[in-house]
Amino acid sequence: MSSYSHDTVPTQFVEANGIRFAYRRFGKNGAVPIVLNIHFRGTMDHWDPLITDGLAKEREVILFDNAGVGASSGKVPATFPDMATDAIAFIRALGIGKADILGYSIGGKVAQEIAVQAPDLVRKLVLVGTGPRGADTDDSKSAEIFAATYDPPEHLWIAAHFLPNAAGRAAGLKYLERKWRRKDRSPEVTEEAAAVQYAAIVKSNEKTEGVWDYLKQIRQPVLVVEGSNDLIIPTINGFTLQQHLPNAQLIVYPDSSHASFYQYPELFLAHASLFLNG
Amino acid sequence: MSSYSHDTVPTQFVEANGIRFAYRRFGKNGAVPIVLNIHFRGTMDHWDPLITDGLAKEREVILFDNAGVGASSGKVPATFPDMATDAIAFIRALGIGKADILGYSIGGKVAQEIAVQAPDLVRKLVLVGTGPRGADTDDSKSAEIFAATYDPPEHLWIAAHFLPNAAGRAAGLKYLERKWRRKDRSPEVTEEAAAVQYAAIVKSNEKTEGVWDYLKQIRQPVLVVEGSNDLIIPTINGFTLQQHLPNAQLIVYPDSSHASFYQYPELFLAHASLFLNG
Repeated sequence: MSSYSHDTVPTQFVEANGIRFAYRRFGKNGAVPIVLNIHFRGTMDHWDPLITDGLAKEREVILFDNAGVGASSGKVPATFPDMATDAIAFIRALGIGKADILGYSIGGKVAQEIAVQAPDLVRKLVLVGTGPRGADTDDSKSAEIFAATYDPPEHLWIAAHFLPNAAGRAAGLKYLERKWRRKDRSPEVTEEAAAVQYAAIVKSNEKTEGVWDYLKQIRQPVLVVEGSNDLIIPTINGFTLQQHLPNAQLIVYPDSSHASFYQYPELFLAHASLFLNG
Repeated sequence: MSSYSHDTVPTQFVEANGIRFAYRRFGKNGAVPIVLNIHFRGTMDHWDPLITDGLAKEREVILFDNAGVGASSGKVPATFPDMATDAIAFIRALGIGKADILGYSIGGKVAQEIAVQAPDLVRKLVLVGTGPRGADTDDSKSAEIFAATYDPPEHLWIAAHFLPNAAGRAAGLKYLERKWRRKDRSPEVTEEAAAVQYAAIVKSNEKTEGVWDYLKQIRQPVLVVEGSNDLIIPTINGFTLQQHLPNAQLIVYPDSSHASFYQYPELFLAHASLFLNG
């Protein structure tokens, strides 16, 4: 066990694929490490420290900024498969031959593409608040939530992660407190980079005949985690993932939106531990 | 902790509502007891001892034959609400003021009706392989599975509980071995009683405007457990339950049918423990 935590672990850098990747690595040595892929407009500093430190009790946790994001160099590529190619290069550059991959929101889309492109690299997948290629976005409130203004602006993340009710707001405020404890932070995602990420989302959501067939290629055990009322990527997409992946367990938490795992961190950690250790 | 297990606990009797209920009670004293409601054509002796003994490590487990079933007197009533009325009378006759209720298949339908009729009696609900009133049965293979003949006849329960693949068959054979360990058994459900149960199923599956509204009345925490491909009560019904109940967690297990909890008993017990102790 390194003595570092989410708040104290220093940022390191590694070069791969022509990109200088910023990353942080901490937690219990020995087990297969888990690599975390963050959401739209997110950097290493958008993760909930309760989740990362919780995971780190049992395994090494690796946070990183993908190409063009935060403290990493390069440009955000136009598609999730290309983001996955960068992520794979990053993981291999660390000398890692087998990893668990966790992805939240568009990070979950990148995680799926990592498994498609590098099946040998991936032991298990944890997909939170995400969907397949060709996701069903009819009931998504994403456009409204990201277009609105917030006072303070940081409260965008309460709207994006949590339900607009008392429990959601309370969980959101606690999350923001935890998130801002760390002082040495990655730069926020630029508007330019966010625009490219957004275009990748639109492209990924295109619905074509057999768009979900690729899920049959992901033969690893997958844990799919959803909030009951995901306002960003609707909950039904988690059910679609479970039904089309060959080996997926789905957990849907009550009274929660996109970041169900930030609303029920202890329960999520217990479920993730059962899945990752099982 | 009583020294009894599923295999050794003696059958007792209690009178309520004009019915002499057969039941068995074992496990750790102190916590809220859990009362189990069995499936179509099931008696106390159809439960998987791995599940009942597992639950009994942390709480008192109460198995019973409802009216007209197994070793209990009376007649099977025509509807699930009436079966729930009998079950409530039975639980209260034991002097229990607060119970957790687990129901599997039509036992899950009875469990919901218990919560509707006696909200004060119910602390938490565990619903396995079941659905709401007005369930979506379009993809159900129930009629074929229950109409077919099996050699030995007992293999009906492999077909009814498990997927027709190698993992399902292996789990099914192990389940049957465990199920038949106990010597002192309840009589099987008569054809007459099964016909009345079947009529109750048909009636419950009627779809009417607002048929799912009653779920809003069930305010207790609910754990909904599903197999990925439930051949009896299709998996989508678990999603419907989760989406319409005010406080429900859904877990869907991979590569499993109606009795997902008999296919993954250790994982189910861990999930149930987190839910019931949480």
